[in-house]
Amino acid sequence: MDLTEKVVGSEQLYDGAIINLERQTVILPNGERAHREIVHHSGAVGVLAITADNKVILVKQWRAPVEKATLEIPAGKLDERDADDPSHTASRELNEEIRLHATQLKRITGFYSSVGFSDEYMTLYLATGLEPVDKELPRDFGENLNVQAYDLETLKAMIAAGEIEDAKTIMAIWYFELMQLQK
Amino acid sequence: MDLTEKVVGSEQLYDGAIINLERQTVILPNGERAHREIVHHSGAVGVLAITADNKVILVKQWRAPVEKATLEIPAGKLDERDADDPSHTASRELNEEIRLHATQLKRITGFYSSVGFSDEYMTLYLATGLEPVDKELPRDFGENLNVQAYDLETLKAMIAAGEIEDAKTIMAIWYFELMQLQK
Repeated sequence: MDLTEKVVGSEQLYDGAIINLERQTVILPNGERAHREIVHHSGAVGVLAITADNKVILVKQWRAPVEKATLEIPAGKLDERDADDPSHTASRELNEEIRLHATQLKRITGFYSSVGFSDEYMTLYLATGLEPVDKELPRDFGENLNVQAYDLETLKAMIAAGEIEDAKTIMAIWYFELMQLQK
Repeated sequence: MDLTEKVVGSEQLYDGAIINLERQTVILPNGERAHREIVHHSGAVGVLAITADNKVILVKQWRAPVEKATLEIPAGKLDERDADDPSHTASRELNEEIRLHATQLKRITGFYSSVGFSDEYMTLYLATGLEPVDKELPRDFGENLNVQAYDLETLKAMIAAGEIEDAKTIMAIWYFELMQLQK
């Protein structure tokens, strides 16, 4: 079955700092007309950072959309300079958020965060061989956070208790669990 | 460290079919002023549906934000009627998208899809004991899709090849893999 939708109209509704909003008019495969709301985002990275004693580093920060602080793996919006190699953004975020440098940084996978309404694509990295950074990069304006490392059993309990409820972070923890089981 | 941001202003920029867009003015813990762009979404469900021969059912559908068809677990926007129990939406989506009824439907976990800019919360379910539905519910307007089941090795190869690049679907497949390893 042909699933292709054809874009026949586009309206830019908002051009913001982090996101842009577009409303498209499309023709469906059956010839009918519909509208699609699209949140454009430049992309992001997330980093599963594992310490020498096999713990996962999480950062706690305020998230305006949910009006609370959430526990997440280090992550950040893709820097324009890094479009060809998101690992540079990953390295910078590790420095800015947790003040560590990864001697090994490996791409795990990549994915659209919420493909129904957004084109945000996140690349997930595995960071090991962590060392203190030589030079601390400045944090983003308004970026306030707490940093802590947790072992797998604690992380699983925190997911079960609803204390971790961020998609990329739960993904990273399940991947970490798969790493343990396949050792 | 206190991470709380205080909202001192709010502007509704867009009120759409699937999403609303708000721009907040906030006071950071250090007293500085900043802006936050927030995409409001009513929430969603995703379903890891496992067949009797241990395959995962995926649907292929056109996704306007990425201008291509993507392979995903059955999923859908939370129905207002189901705010108290998203499993009802999960059951309806299984009927609408794959024409099956789950005799067992269990909540796996829940998470924010992209908490940096959106409040979309997704509940992930595990559906087993699948049976053909008695009565097919009508599909959403503009919902065109292909349905197929895949075994774990094929799914892992598809993630590695970039043929599956949807966050909730990769999550569900890793959870499925954890289920196999812990059997």
